[in-house]
Amino acid sequence: MIDLLSEIDSPQDLKKLSTEQLYDLTQEVRNKIILTLSKTGGHLASSIGAVELIIALHSILDSPDDKIIWDVGHQTYAHKILTGRADEFTTLRQLDGISGFPKSKENIHDHLDVGHSSTSISAALGMACARDIKGNDETVVAVIGDGALTAGMAFEALNHAGDLGKDLIVVLNDNEMSIAKNVGAVSNYLDKLRTNPRIHKAKQDVEDLLHKIPSLGDKLLKTAGAMKDALKYLVVSGVLFEEFGFTYLGPIDGHDLKSIQSHIEDAQNVGGPVLIHALTTKGKGYLPAEENPSQFHGVGPFNIRTGKGKRNREHPTYTNIFSQTLVELAEEDEDIVAITAAMPSGTGLTEFADRFPDRFYDVGIAEQHAVTLGAGLALNSTKPFVTLYSTFLQRGYDQVLHDVCLQQASVKFAIDRAGLVGRDGGTHQGVFDYAYLRHLPNMTVMAPKDENELQDMVLTAANYEAGPISVRYPRGESFGVELTENQMLEIGKAEVLKEGEDGVVLAIGSMVYPALEVAQQLAREEGLDLTVVNSRFVKPLDQDLILELAVEFDTLFTVEEHVLQGGFGSAVAELLADHNQQLNLKRFGLPDKFIEHGTQAELLARYGLDVPTIKAEIKAVLQEG
Amino acid sequence: MIDLLSEIDSPQDLKKLSTEQLYDLTQEVRNKIILTLSKTGGHLASSIGAVELIIALHSILDSPDDKIIWDVGHQTYAHKILTGRADEFTTLRQLDGISGFPKSKENIHDHLDVGHSSTSISAALGMACARDIKGNDETVVAVIGDGALTAGMAFEALNHAGDLGKDLIVVLNDNEMSIAKNVGAVSNYLDKLRTNPRIHKAKQDVEDLLHKIPSLGDKLLKTAGAMKDALKYLVVSGVLFEEFGFTYLGPIDGHDLKSIQSHIEDAQNVGGPVLIHALTTKGKGYLPAEENPSQFHGVGPFNIRTGKGKRNREHPTYTNIFSQTLVELAEEDEDIVAITAAMPSGTGLTEFADRFPDRFYDVGIAEQHAVTLGAGLALNSTKPFVTLYSTFLQRGYDQVLHDVCLQQASVKFAIDRAGLVGRDGGTHQGVFDYAYLRHLPNMTVMAPKDENELQDMVLTAANYEAGPISVRYPRGESFGVELTENQMLEIGKAEVLKEGEDGVVLAIGSMVYPALEVAQQLAREEGLDLTVVNSRFVKPLDQDLILELAVEFDTLFTVEEHVLQGGFGSAVAELLADHNQQLNLKRFGLPDKFIEHGTQAELLARYGLDVPTIKAEIKAVLQEG
Repeated sequence: MIDLLSEIDSPQDLKKLSTEQLYDLTQEVRNKIILTLSKTGGHLASSIGAVELIIALHSILDSPDDKIIWDVGHQTYAHKILTGRADEFTTLRQLDGISGFPKSKENIHDHLDVGHSSTSISAALGMACARDIKGNDETVVAVIGDGALTAGMAFEALNHAGDLGKDLIVVLNDNEMSIAKNVGAVSNYLDKLRTNPRIHKAKQDVEDLLHKIPSLGDKLLKTAGAMKDALKYLVVSGVLFEEFGFTYLGPIDGHDLKSIQSHIEDAQNVGGPVLIHALTTKGKGYLPAEENPSQFHGVGPFNIRTGKGKRNREHPTYTNIFSQTLVELAEEDEDIVAITAAMPSGTGLTEFADRFPDRFYDVGIAEQHAVTLGAGLALNSTKPFVTLYSTFLQRGYDQVLHDVCLQQASVKFAIDRAGLVGRDGGTHQGVFDYAYLRHLPNMTVMAPKDENELQDMVLTAANYEAGPISVRYPRGESFGVELTENQMLEIGKAEVLKEGEDGVVLAIGSMVYPALEVAQQLAREEGLDLTVVNSRFVKPLDQDLILELAVEFDTLFTVEEHVLQGGFGSAVAELLADHNQQLNLKRFGLPDKFIEHGTQAELLARYGLDVPTIKAEIKAVLQEG
Repeated sequence: MIDLLSEIDSPQDLKKLSTEQLYDLTQEVRNKIILTLSKTGGHLASSIGAVELIIALHSILDSPDDKIIWDVGHQTYAHKILTGRADEFTTLRQLDGISGFPKSKENIHDHLDVGHSSTSISAALGMACARDIKGNDETVVAVIGDGALTAGMAFEALNHAGDLGKDLIVVLNDNEMSIAKNVGAVSNYLDKLRTNPRIHKAKQDVEDLLHKIPSLGDKLLKTAGAMKDALKYLVVSGVLFEEFGFTYLGPIDGHDLKSIQSHIEDAQNVGGPVLIHALTTKGKGYLPAEENPSQFHGVGPFNIRTGKGKRNREHPTYTNIFSQTLVELAEEDEDIVAITAAMPSGTGLTEFADRFPDRFYDVGIAEQHAVTLGAGLALNSTKPFVTLYSTFLQRGYDQVLHDVCLQQASVKFAIDRAGLVGRDGGTHQGVFDYAYLRHLPNMTVMAPKDENELQDMVLTAANYEAGPISVRYPRGESFGVELTENQMLEIGKAEVLKEGEDGVVLAIGSMVYPALEVAQQLAREEGLDLTVVNSRFVKPLDQDLILELAVEFDTLFTVEEHVLQGGFGSAVAELLADHNQQLNLKRFGLPDKFIEHGTQAELLARYGLDVPTIKAEIKAVLQEG
């Protein structure tokens, strides 16, 4: 096979290739993605499903003058490879390597940093507006998946774009699933478009028919105006998008390069807002992924021949523990309900869904609705667990405030992937949740030190009826501690794990065990004897305990896997100030910047949240102080 | 006129009335609203437009077992009057009087606390789900305006509700405007439904037609399946909602009591999700409001005969000053763009829109899209001002984080109605913005001491190109200070207004002048000489100055119109802790609760942010310390 890829330094080079060569190139790119990901892991299925779309777009458009705005962005590996990043591609998602998502600081062809869903049409429309203000004429294209259409934000943007009428191309990359199978009416609607191969045929038939029946006379003429419009609806085709003011082209085969190319050109010629509906297959070209696209959405290293993952876990994940605990509670308590936003597997609700289908709601990518649906469920006497990743709950911030906290609705928030999430990087880090939750009146904010305490907190949340309550837990493997019988925790009570006289460490969540390890090492190595507290609650704080410790000690350390601004240590600083406790407060946490990708361990070390760094700093403070 | 209203203690009493009496009652209720509001002010136009809808709903349903969920909630005065609050109605929006919005703690017929838009369908669906889990059979109704449909959240809920198929009635109260005239494709679509009186006639005609042409034979039979479905689309009627899986009833006259009643009964009989499209007139029954519904959306006291407001302002509002400044800047700088979410008048952008229509975007109630549209505009070299109320920017929190801050897009946030907003109460207070913005990397957070400084900050924002920047300013009248020529402010630099030796007050935004007043009174009355700092920036703080002052003084006071959790004083506490400055930090701000309605002055006094209280507390600290 000829190596075409080595000739491609920028998208301009695609224009030198024949159609046949472009087809060959798709195979090269696809192979490169599969080979690389078998070693690095990454978002496989969506990436190899979008290769033809990406090559077609770049072969027609003039990037970076023309702007391609990717939605979510985990499907852009081919784009990365074609925009001068082929050599670096092996560093994908590695510390200091290239990001798994578009990143403007990485490359001039990445115009919008992205990772969350459904932002592309808004941003692309903004760019189109700016283009027209500036009197420029570049083409702006948003590429969005069908799953992303269920988020309200995409609807807001379609609504506005249709109304403004500006030149804007939206490519709907329709693979019938976001991560899990899509849900909702929009999904059903797309199904209809997809599964009706006779759409255009039918339309033609009806037009022919109408030409043949002028003799029916007046009646028809009277409704002719309506009929003309009606033809549009008659064949179902694209009506939803046309209602929004878009010209609808498609559906087309999203793996047919020539067809995509010609439709992009058509869209440029038509002008105004145009939607190209391209059908693609997630995992296209790699059989294990085609057969099991959900499993190949995000993968670790795998064996190319078998498709089997190479990663073996020693301990269950926090998600596993949450999953199992909730199912056990739901067996006993028929009021327990679970809500996910398009992440039944990621959030560990698959078993719950199987066991209790009538008490399980997958709302699609729609976090705002998820939260307020939870409010409605709570206000009508059930016990909803709204189960989202920390980074995605950000979308529901106002709903948590206005629909849940304001009314003290007893919604339970199970916040997964809290703290550093690793290789997904800046868009996905769950490091703001203490800050965006703890200033909300009536909210209770918990974080467990280990998986056993997670069970306790899930039980505590299930039985808490005085208002909203949240528990945040990390991505990945738990510690492997013994699981004891769940017990209710007292709200706002911390746990003293170790008593010492030389200083006190208030740790929360994932940082409790590292803090304990620091204390043990300092005791062994330096003879420094620290008190270590498992804080458990960011809100309400264990005021009595902390104020007692503040009187007893000159120095107080806080440790959290969260930004320092507005987080746990900040809450402690407020408490100390409010009680005029003047002592040395040293806070460990993440700095005021977006944290890049890398493994969780690498990032913790880089930002000084690893045992050696914390130990060294505590030692320095105590021995100098 | 017979006094029917005095007989109505609960909605059950409506069932004793004849249709004619119900019609009389609408007039009584309407008069009571107009009369009361002419004294108290409030949301007039939408309230009197919904009287028939509300009476019809309560005459058919069994509230509170049946649940009526109001969207936004400012249209519910008739509901309040009919649910045992007629006597208290004169206390509307007054301190300790009844709220201007539904409030579950106020009355058993208020099921959902509300104030923000587009939450009703989600919450109602949650209640319907809970009902079915519990095996109950109450009717759940969401009443939503057409403006609220432009928010993505409503779309998320329609999408899910249509898919679930549960019994749920959505009444679309369509008055063709939210506050300003609606915008967007959905609005155009509703226009089509509204303005086509022949919808049902046409549908019948076409059905008749089809019955007459079996002779056309094969062709027709082949398309018969398509045709049957097509009829639905053929006449445009309700297709958007039917695509979502709703049964569409209407449009009906939303002031025709009997028609509304029978359609509610129809909807109950049909089952599943049903949308009743009711056309209403905002301001119905009061001519000045019918003629100028925008002006009568929210009013102060007015003269009933003329409709003229009684309130006279001495000074321009902050909104006026922002408005004028932005227009002046935009005259010179063609890159300046302004975005509002359905609030062109409220946010002061009407003149901008008139002067620079090509650089003005009203996106409808769609704050998420507003923010990311701004990101797109900034990333393509324009200078967008995203102009929202503090409470509504909450809806765009994730977009500010993910689409703006992450990429350091130079979006300018003009945050109006920040701090206490007064009579709108708990749902509308703008008291969380420092907290939800200052933990975001790359964000700059400003607040001016007066309207002159607001001008400077708008200029500074316009010319700031290093990332996102925000300026928050209060609702209502400014101080009436002299307006001098705008000048650029240095980022992160505070202003020392007064130097003294007995203590230091760091004040921010609206609290700077009160702090200065406190200092002046304390100097006069007690001989206490305070340093007073106009902090200007919540982020970045003026670290050098604050740390200098921390060394110099034993006691430092912070004053902010914002919750204490995570706010300005919290940022100061963090700074002091991080530099091991141990001194007495006393923070003035709002407590950890949702603040009820009342005038801004009343609420400031109640929560200890008035000059006498601050003075007394500072005096106590300094004289005891």
